[in-house]
Amino acid sequence: MADPRRIVGVIGGLGPAATADFFSRIVQRTEARRDQDHLHIIIDNNPLIPDRNAARRGEGPSPGPELAASAQRLEAAGADILCMACNTAHAYETEIRAAIRCPFISMIDATLEDMSRRCPEVRTVGVLAVDACLEAELYQKGLLARGRSAVILGGGGQASFMTAINAVKAGETGDDPARRMRAAVQDLVTQGAEAIIAGCTEIPLVLKKSDAPIRLISSTDALVERVIIAAGGRLRQTDQFA
Amino acid sequence: MADPRRIVGVIGGLGPAATADFFSRIVQRTEARRDQDHLHIIIDNNPLIPDRNAARRGEGPSPGPELAASAQRLEAAGADILCMACNTAHAYETEIRAAIRCPFISMIDATLEDMSRRCPEVRTVGVLAVDACLEAELYQKGLLARGRSAVILGGGGQASFMTAINAVKAGETGDDPARRMRAAVQDLVTQGAEAIIAGCTEIPLVLKKSDAPIRLISSTDALVERVIIAAGGRLRQTDQFA
Repeated sequence: MADPRRIVGVIGGLGPAATADFFSRIVQRTEARRDQDHLHIIIDNNPLIPDRNAARRGEGPSPGPELAASAQRLEAAGADILCMACNTAHAYETEIRAAIRCPFISMIDATLEDMSRRCPEVRTVGVLAVDACLEAELYQKGLLARGRSAVILGGGGQASFMTAINAVKAGETGDDPARRMRAAVQDLVTQGAEAIIAGCTEIPLVLKKSDAPIRLISSTDALVERVIIAAGGRLRQTDQFA
Repeated sequence: MADPRRIVGVIGGLGPAATADFFSRIVQRTEARRDQDHLHIIIDNNPLIPDRNAARRGEGPSPGPELAASAQRLEAAGADILCMACNTAHAYETEIRAAIRCPFISMIDATLEDMSRRCPEVRTVGVLAVDACLEAELYQKGLLARGRSAVILGGGGQASFMTAINAVKAGETGDDPARRMRAAVQDLVTQGAEAIIAGCTEIPLVLKKSDAPIRLISSTDALVERVIIAAGGRLRQTDQFA
């Protein structure tokens, strides 16, 4: 009998450490007693995809065509459903969807729905995300559509947050990126945020749940949960950001 | 100008946590200041591949055809070199190589060469590996060819080691698997081992370098290093089993 579960394709490498973290969390969150209980996942970790922030600044080529090529590669390899372990690259979601026939599970939608479910009472939501993600307003539009208002970091705070993200991408494991992210959280709280969307997959690599005085919604964990269920796997219950 | 580096294909899912660990270690060990410095890696994490130990006992189908299919899927997706994050499945290496045109980098060879380089003086080597890996004598033959003798666990010790491996595959994170592995190391030391090959990719998930009084050669790290160099990446220097 053929396995009824779907093969998951992951567009990754944006960056690679975040993709490895996303993959690890799928494995950890899948209820399994042996290898065969886990999901079949094909990962295209392609860090050569053009830089999203540089493209947004007009300083580099669009990553759209390479993202679409990755999606096609995964579908050709057998993936039944696709997802992408990077928030910012969802600015090119239309190009990705146009390139494939199988469903694409949006990390942005998964995160917004997770937020609505976990904290229905919250009106003001802080969005931690890189420049290109904020400029594309991926989360701000979705929050507005759900009757919430969004707060984001000011110029200096956002610059410090970008320094932290780039340090994580360079493999720096000291306390400096974590310190900058804790300051970013505090900035959003001061601006009135009642919950915070961690809208960048590098964030959970350094920021822990206990680092925030309010609820952190992890875009990584929201997509992990959505993908396991969509693929027909069984979800293991644990805390997010554990 | 086309990137001169090669795309790495990884046959994985045997088990998934070990594949995620292998992937994470490639990312950590690649010298990189930004996403684009990392390697393009395609991972076929297929945990549905038939159980290697059951096949060896005659209690299940051979994983050979599925391993060969995974290799072909990766090559079709664009991989220039292939490897596999599982020692035991190398018993089917001939079937894999026959199915592809691109080079396949053996984890067994990488580990034996790493051992020869790191501890040229050692004559007696302990091999920690699952039943099917030991029965196929993947490491014992290679050690003999290099003028070394191999020692392995006795029946009771091996059974306890298998319990630990299966616990790791089931996602158990308590101290029991680590305790069993430390006992296995001690058993091999008592038998005269001067160094130990950690010949199963689940081992580094629970056993730390400091857990062994003698040198541990990690098959995971040996393959990670070999693959980064073969793909044209730059190796970041760190301790194994750190």
